[in-house]
Amino acid sequence: MISFKNDYSEGACPEVLEALVKTNYEQTVGYGEDEYCEEARNLIKENINYPNADIYFLVGGTQANTTVISHSLKPYEAVIACKTGHISIHETGAIEATGHKIIEVDGIDGKLTSNLILNELRKHEDHHMVKPKMVYISNTTEIGTVYTKSELESISKVCKENNLYLYLDGARLASALASEKCDVNLEDYPKYCDVFYIGGTKCGLLFGEAVVIINDEIKKEFQFSVKQKGGLFAKGRLLGIQFATLFKDDLYYKIGVHSNKMALKIKNAFAEKGIKLATDSYTNQVFVDLNPEQIKKLEKDVIFSVEFFGIGESQSSRFVTSWATKEEDVDRLVELIKNL
Amino acid sequence: MISFKNDYSEGACPEVLEALVKTNYEQTVGYGEDEYCEEARNLIKENINYPNADIYFLVGGTQANTTVISHSLKPYEAVIACKTGHISIHETGAIEATGHKIIEVDGIDGKLTSNLILNELRKHEDHHMVKPKMVYISNTTEIGTVYTKSELESISKVCKENNLYLYLDGARLASALASEKCDVNLEDYPKYCDVFYIGGTKCGLLFGEAVVIINDEIKKEFQFSVKQKGGLFAKGRLLGIQFATLFKDDLYYKIGVHSNKMALKIKNAFAEKGIKLATDSYTNQVFVDLNPEQIKKLEKDVIFSVEFFGIGESQSSRFVTSWATKEEDVDRLVELIKNL
Amino acid sequence: MISFKNDYSEGACPEVLEALVKTNYEQTVGYGEDEYCEEARNLIKENINYPNADIYFLVGGTQANTTVISHSLKPYEAVIACKTGHISIHETGAIEATGHKIIEVDGIDGKLTSNLILNELRKHEDHHMVKPKMVYISNTTEIGTVYTKSELESISKVCKENNLYLYLDGARLASALASEKCDVNLEDYPKYCDVFYIGGTKCGLLFGEAVVIINDEIKKEFQFSVKQKGGLFAKGRLLGIQFATLFKDDLYYKIGVHSNKMALKIKNAFAEKGIKLATDSYTNQVFVDLNPEQIKKLEKDVIFSVEFFGIGESQSSRFVTSWATKEEDVDRLVELIKNL
Amino acid sequence: MISFKNDYSEGACPEVLEALVKTNYEQTVGYGEDEYCEEARNLIKENINYPNADIYFLVGGTQANTTVISHSLKPYEAVIACKTGHISIHETGAIEATGHKIIEVDGIDGKLTSNLILNELRKHEDHHMVKPKMVYISNTTEIGTVYTKSELESISKVCKENNLYLYLDGARLASALASEKCDVNLEDYPKYCDVFYIGGTKCGLLFGEAVVIINDEIKKEFQFSVKQKGGLFAKGRLLGIQFATLFKDDLYYKIGVHSNKMALKIKNAFAEKGIKLATDSYTNQVFVDLNPEQIKKLEKDVIFSVEFFGIGESQSSRFVTSWATKEEDVDRLVELIKNL
Repeated sequence: MISFKNDYSEGACPEVLEALVKTNYEQTVGYGEDEYCEEARNLIKENINYPNADIYFLVGGTQANTTVISHSLKPYEAVIACKTGHISIHETGAIEATGHKIIEVDGIDGKLTSNLILNELRKHEDHHMVKPKMVYISNTTEIGTVYTKSELESISKVCKENNLYLYLDGARLASALASEKCDVNLEDYPKYCDVFYIGGTKCGLLFGEAVVIINDEIKKEFQFSVKQKGGLFAKGRLLGIQFATLFKDDLYYKIGVHSNKMALKIKNAFAEKGIKLATDSYTNQVFVDLNPEQIKKLEKDVIFSVEFFGIGESQSSRFVTSWATKEEDVDRLVELIKNL
Repeated sequence: MISFKNDYSEGACPEVLEALVKTNYEQTVGYGEDEYCEEARNLIKENINYPNADIYFLVGGTQANTTVISHSLKPYEAVIACKTGHISIHETGAIEATGHKIIEVDGIDGKLTSNLILNELRKHEDHHMVKPKMVYISNTTEIGTVYTKSELESISKVCKENNLYLYLDGARLASALASEKCDVNLEDYPKYCDVFYIGGTKCGLLFGEAVVIINDEIKKEFQFSVKQKGGLFAKGRLLGIQFATLFKDDLYYKIGVHSNKMALKIKNAFAEKGIKLATDSYTNQVFVDLNPEQIKKLEKDVIFSVEFFGIGESQSSRFVTSWATKEEDVDRLVELIKNL
Repeated sequence: MISFKNDYSEGACPEVLEALVKTNYEQTVGYGEDEYCEEARNLIKENINYPNADIYFLVGGTQANTTVISHSLKPYEAVIACKTGHISIHETGAIEATGHKIIEVDGIDGKLTSNLILNELRKHEDHHMVKPKMVYISNTTEIGTVYTKSELESISKVCKENNLYLYLDGARLASALASEKCDVNLEDYPKYCDVFYIGGTKCGLLFGEAVVIINDEIKKEFQFSVKQKGGLFAKGRLLGIQFATLFKDDLYYKIGVHSNKMALKIKNAFAEKGIKLATDSYTNQVFVDLNPEQIKKLEKDVIFSVEFFGIGESQSSRFVTSWATKEEDVDRLVELIKNL
Repeated sequence: MISFKNDYSEGACPEVLEALVKTNYEQTVGYGEDEYCEEARNLIKENINYPNADIYFLVGGTQANTTVISHSLKPYEAVIACKTGHISIHETGAIEATGHKIIEVDGIDGKLTSNLILNELRKHEDHHMVKPKMVYISNTTEIGTVYTKSELESISKVCKENNLYLYLDGARLASALASEKCDVNLEDYPKYCDVFYIGGTKCGLLFGEAVVIINDEIKKEFQFSVKQKGGLFAKGRLLGIQFATLFKDDLYYKIGVHSNKMALKIKNAFAEKGIKLATDSYTNQVFVDLNPEQIKKLEKDVIFSVEFFGIGESQSSRFVTSWATKEEDVDRLVELIKNL
């Protein structure tokens, strides 16, 4: 069996594993106050070209989203997101559990637009309704699409003009940066976002997401929220060591390039076979409309997800690639697709 | 100026006011444990023909909704509601503030259907998503429409089959009961609902909503939630006195009949004038699509709301009647409509 | 039977009832935006001599406390209060239900001191602990004691120096103002407090508490929190009418004077009989240590509370007076005490 | 510099590290549904001799406490804990952030007793107060003390008789089991507790706590709470691999024995020097009352904590040992203590 179930099926990529082993017996202080975390923060600041950012390392995506959003909003403030957004659909109500409404919008290809945001602002007239205060977007989106520069600029402009925070979930940001449809660099993000996170779990780390805070209002006392939401990791240096490795020698970018390249081969195979793509992804996730017979046939040799992803009203089949995806396995899958 | 702004523009209807004055200097115990509350509970139990109900008197609708929903659900459970539902749109995120997601559905004429509910159950596959556990409906709905018996039966059946609580917001239940489109009696509600509330604020009381609990699971320790959510009213007897009066001599039903009759005259006037109804209401609220000139002209003599009610994507004009609406004022409005 | 169970056993005092009856059929807008609320706000601003205050009328004390505290604090911020404080002991965890820790302190005679506050600040060293941000005091306290001017000044000074909000629960503030032990006037409170509330429910109204906000940070968007916490009362004018009456012709102060005078007679009767006072109250509540036989004997003719009030580790007997307490009933109680 | 700052200064113990490296490139499903997690669950069930337990692997202690407590309690239910309890003092209000009050009790040597619990039950009389529903204890306690068998039996009995859940925080349970003062085995815990967790972070793992659920009520739908609170770890197998290693070849118990042995040498050195122990610990943490000069002198060569731990009203100095503590470093510290 070969697995395209997700981008977190293996442990760490070799460079990261080696760094962890090498430093294992060193003594450091806890809670992210060690020198490895400091090094990683500095490397990320260089990569985003924004020395004044505050950077926190958290263990997972739901934790990052919950901590950032609950920290930033007052009790009656709400966050605007796509219906397909991870926080809307796949976090078991984690955001609402901290007291905040998600204003869910039918996105376009899994993306928000400045007009969709303005439309919600128009509807929320007074204190009988929640006050929209944050916009949540993901790049790549949960359905594999990517924001272009002009789209991000337009959303960012609307946010700034209307006193909304823009928060970007970058669980798969490496794949977005490496996409042929993407004309944005990592160092552009501080210009657009008030806060974003750079995903590590889906990019070769054992675990870890780096929350990057640009807006000074959000920076204030953020460590209190990290601790309260269960995100203050005792052996914090593990996160520092991993992220420091990821941002040395362009490893982060290379992983994105490899993943996308593998996914594109799969996508093309489906297209050539005439199987309908559920979304037009240019990143490391491929969503297709397989019929029950095709699913059954493929499942004999391949592990993949058949789930409700919010694409339309039905389930889709999803194939995901990662740093660990071997080209020979992709070629095998391509053969199997041809014979569907 | 005559006002059709809402059904809570005056104080109490005469019978209620008289009862409050008459009992003012009596001493009772607090917190709803007095004999007037007991009397009111018994009268309501008779009217719903369900002696085994638990009944609590709360001050307002948002409080009732918040207390019932937060009491009934576990942290990861969610409530399904229409997008136009009061809890979805007009309570400033009160439900989410208690930690629960509202799964918002595009209703049909402001109403849920059994199919819409089943569709959401189908999508919520596992523990990566919230668990739907309650269905919230309002009768009359927030946009003036009414559920028929067969609609309620069908929803109730789906709820029972899928282990969902059915909660009905009856802020304007008197108007629903009196509607020509309604073939349900008050005593049918315990058959359909696990819990519902009978609105008093919009039906001639100074304030007050009677929460009626049918399901034993929800009954348990409900008074703790009432106290915690700020609903344990010190001079609880005020609620008892008012509801006891409302359910004597059919006052409750008479108010519904009068309100609807007044609203129907207004509705007909708009229809005859050829002005488009925003919703086809048969109750005490009339929603119409007035253009800016018409609004401006009417506002010289009449007070009414122009707001975003969730009907489509734009504002509507709303005219509301109540126990206090005088026929002469309605006739005056009808004249003004004719001259638009 | 005569009742000294609490100060909310009757309806409204005559002046308030009359005002409600007189205005009953007038039409006003809802939600506290009417002219009566405006009048009441102006009267209160005059009485506190602080024209720049923001004033909101809420229905009850738990609701006021919950709304003020949850509005003012960030998720990781906490409120310091006495163990006997109403929020600590008698609100079913309403504050914690909004997400905030109460740092409970063993008070002195039910009161906080500047040193007790400083002691908590010293202990809360970093982000592994909550951040103290608000101090909650009640005047009169829940056990009948009163803060002096120098005590309030000292607490206020510590709060300002340490960037803490001072919030005063004035459910029985009228009784505190009228106490012989009190050297503070109502117009002193804006100097000490960032926010406080003037209780109406226990001072002759049917219901109602007036939240007075002094600090501009807390003022911001407070109406959103009021709505979300279920406190936006539909027929808001009822609160305006009542408070406008209470602050005309010194009614508010007269009620405090009468209540205290009645309570003092009761207190003296217990003292003369040699029965131990549980607390040395100079206000409208008297707490005594009755033995089971005395309780049994008194309960034949008198209704009063025997409860855990947080005074020591055991129950106390409480006798409460109000605007409605008749001197003849007090005299009767005094006789009964003599014969214990 | 040698560090006795805490028991999480290094990475993983050698056996655990090796297992992670060995399995790194294997493909597994995510979220703890892999075979390593299954193996670890089975090993733990054998060790506790309770095949019917449900076991979940979480990343950290605050997360475990938050998830267990918020999952188990209704909104108005509270947890009784020592003032020195980790949830009371050192989790930045994480429990309150999920809506629940901690009823904080002055413990005896950092421990609750059956009488202290009964005392709180007696005080909580009705629905004006929270309802105590859970008891939280830690073993070892946060100040290094240990529960004996008879103490645990007595607490457990009171809990069962009063329908309270007993939850034990075992962040340092290995040290408790290895303590000379401890007459309880790991397999006794399911008899006493409704739920407990076995700490890995402070016992040689990179990270990880194993929540063991005994009570069927708490088992129900626990995975929803895990996901919602951010605890559903993508590469869940990392937790399985680590815990499977920990519970093979008695590694778990050996770590406890070594840590305690090292700590005892330090404790004895302080005692012999005549320096007052702040608590009489028999586990891997030693708390002493050093004066400022002693602290200054020791800090030249040793890293340790000087903090407010809730022992009395002042700071203490803490020295912690672990699997990684070298005897030569302890001997060095002993020398330094002698020369204080």
